[in-house]
Amino acid sequence: MEGLREYIDTMVRAAKAASVGLRTLSARSKTAALGAMASAIDADRAAIGAANARDLERGKAEGLSAAMLDRLALTDRRIDDIVSSLAEIAALEDPIGEVIGTRRPAGFLLQRVRTPIGVLVMIYESRPNVTVDTAALCLKSGNASILRGGSEARESSTALVRCIQGGLAAAGVDRNAVQYVDRPDYEAIDMLVRQSGLVDLVVPRGGEALIRRVVEHATVPVIKHYKGVCHIYVDETADLEMAAAVAANSKLQRPGTCNALEKLLVHEAIAARFLPLVQAKMPGVELRADPRARALLPGARAATEDDWYAEYLDLVLAVKVVGSLEEAAAHIEKYGSSHTDGICSRDAGAIERFVGLVDSAVVTVNASTRLNDGGIFGLGAELGISTDKLHARGPMGVRELTTYKWILRGNGDLRT
Amino acid sequence: MEGLREYIDTMVRAAKAASVGLRTLSARSKTAALGAMASAIDADRAAIGAANARDLERGKAEGLSAAMLDRLALTDRRIDDIVSSLAEIAALEDPIGEVIGTRRPAGFLLQRVRTPIGVLVMIYESRPNVTVDTAALCLKSGNASILRGGSEARESSTALVRCIQGGLAAAGVDRNAVQYVDRPDYEAIDMLVRQSGLVDLVVPRGGEALIRRVVEHATVPVIKHYKGVCHIYVDETADLEMAAAVAANSKLQRPGTCNALEKLLVHEAIAARFLPLVQAKMPGVELRADPRARALLPGARAATEDDWYAEYLDLVLAVKVVGSLEEAAAHIEKYGSSHTDGICSRDAGAIERFVGLVDSAVVTVNASTRLNDGGIFGLGAELGISTDKLHARGPMGVRELTTYKWILRGNGDLRT
Repeated sequence: MEGLREYIDTMVRAAKAASVGLRTLSARSKTAALGAMASAIDADRAAIGAANARDLERGKAEGLSAAMLDRLALTDRRIDDIVSSLAEIAALEDPIGEVIGTRRPAGFLLQRVRTPIGVLVMIYESRPNVTVDTAALCLKSGNASILRGGSEARESSTALVRCIQGGLAAAGVDRNAVQYVDRPDYEAIDMLVRQSGLVDLVVPRGGEALIRRVVEHATVPVIKHYKGVCHIYVDETADLEMAAAVAANSKLQRPGTCNALEKLLVHEAIAARFLPLVQAKMPGVELRADPRARALLPGARAATEDDWYAEYLDLVLAVKVVGSLEEAAAHIEKYGSSHTDGICSRDAGAIERFVGLVDSAVVTVNASTRLNDGGIFGLGAELGISTDKLHARGPMGVRELTTYKWILRGNGDLRT
Repeated sequence: MEGLREYIDTMVRAAKAASVGLRTLSARSKTAALGAMASAIDADRAAIGAANARDLERGKAEGLSAAMLDRLALTDRRIDDIVSSLAEIAALEDPIGEVIGTRRPAGFLLQRVRTPIGVLVMIYESRPNVTVDTAALCLKSGNASILRGGSEARESSTALVRCIQGGLAAAGVDRNAVQYVDRPDYEAIDMLVRQSGLVDLVVPRGGEALIRRVVEHATVPVIKHYKGVCHIYVDETADLEMAAAVAANSKLQRPGTCNALEKLLVHEAIAARFLPLVQAKMPGVELRADPRARALLPGARAATEDDWYAEYLDLVLAVKVVGSLEEAAAHIEKYGSSHTDGICSRDAGAIERFVGLVDSAVVTVNASTRLNDGGIFGLGAELGISTDKLHARGPMGVRELTTYKWILRGNGDLRT
């Protein structure tokens, strides 16, 4: 434990020192560093591939599923993607130094200027490309990062971070601007999230248990998302063909993602006409229904209370008939996760009632829940989707990794 | 303990239920409720005065200082101020529902709309007027509040909250929109700050020990300010008369506040000319100086290492001679509290270097640190000054008590 504590302390102090230098690093230098990181990864494919092969071998021996092994694998094509993703992040507008507000309340000039947050701890799971994307987004926003990826990808991630640090050094940037926690212990995370005054923010991504552990231990601010239990409510005035297409796209376009549809709430007035359309659009999806919906859905299983809370991330959908928009909103309030919830309706009044009542990060109207995405929203590369209410809500891009300071420019101004 | 837990659970659930209603409460209803609160307080002066007299009597018996008793006292004039402060908050622009961003990234319309945060726990110390201001700012921003004021003001605060709840009820608003924790136990706070999912934010104000205890226990996000160790660096090119006036105003205008000047850093090139001006402008201020400054300040005491970290809140100022702007910035980085730090200079390049290097919530240029104030900044009534970097930095007004949601308005839009 003492060895681990010293390891973490040294890392955090080095990150803090690097973050002071990043504060005034020019946009041009950051772009150069991102380019150098890409070149280093491109040049070091052999070592990265070998490290990845070792991860895959250990993963097979430890019995990882085929899907997990596939996520872990760094093919040559995936390394190409990593390199081009760095170029995309380099090309984003630099967020730092932007004047986001100007006032002249009383003689002096008051500016709110965008600044880096400082030192970020990023916790995530298996895919090795996340290591590079996360490091790049943190650097682009002027933050020093401490990365802690899934242990299955440990060799791959450390090989990638070696290239990243080489790139930083080649561009004249402190290599401690990006560091990797090469220790599997959970205690390392527990220590990191208690470094108030040195670490400024923790962003945990992964299983709910990990995130709850972080929240439980943290003294540093945390931005997170626990899960995505996304709903669509189909109102009595909905265009039913459109609603069925929206629901099917929300469920099927990529069922394993946090913004995929998990629950369908249907107004009783159109349930008998609408539910057969749903069933026809979603062959292969297991439906779990409340008694009224089940009567209209041949072959559907009975939904249990647990079904309403569940994030399936699979070809399963729970369906419920409701008596009103208000009942739908109350259901979403009770069982939902405030991630992405929508309405299909042609009634402008009903739409506004729903939008006012439902307190989710993203509320969709006549649109697929799958559209909740930083790239689609035009925010650039996305770091995740926050279901928190403080600082960042919904998709997080580089701007969400910044804060601001106030600059008060006077000419001898005093307080009277 | 079980009784306390049940008390807190009931309170938090009632606040959450009230917050759902506040989400869609109109600006007009909130204004009416604030007006009714003012009327109720105005009408109930006798009971409020009697409650305050009991607090004062107990405070005297417990040996509170004259300054503390003065802060606690609710004279008729102070009740007038409370009533007019409610009118001012009622007159602020309603922040909720404001569209703070519109995009059309791909066919559909995307709006970012300002919404309440939800349920706020506000922890503060003795002055009873803070109870009313805090409740009013939370209501104006559409949030349900749970208030926990200092125990010295317990009777006064509960009498005021009785009026506030009467006003809410008279305006047809759920009286649980504002609740007061009428229990002196610290355990009540420990429980409140662990109510993730029901409480959305905790804002502790008060002594550093209390705030650290909240941060240590909280699973709910916290916005805080530990202390204000404010610096002014006087550059070699400064207008020395102006700089002396700025420093004196920063120190003397109200020494007991968090944005009062505590440390003066002076460039060696002008120290011999500048320090006598400082001493002449601040008779009655005890100066504690490093060896070089002490040689120029007759009668000054030697500053200890602790002096550089200290928030005096008193007529004491620490003074240090530095060799460069960079040395000043490094000193502020090490010893400061990231609250309010400034430069006096006539060199535009030096000013920009300082503004880039110093990572404080407010950076002042040729201006008094005392100008860091929500009212002066034009933010309306202020809830406090955040030295955190997440969500709100610097002065916090009603807008800083809001969040946003994204509304995606489509017409059958799907993800491809």
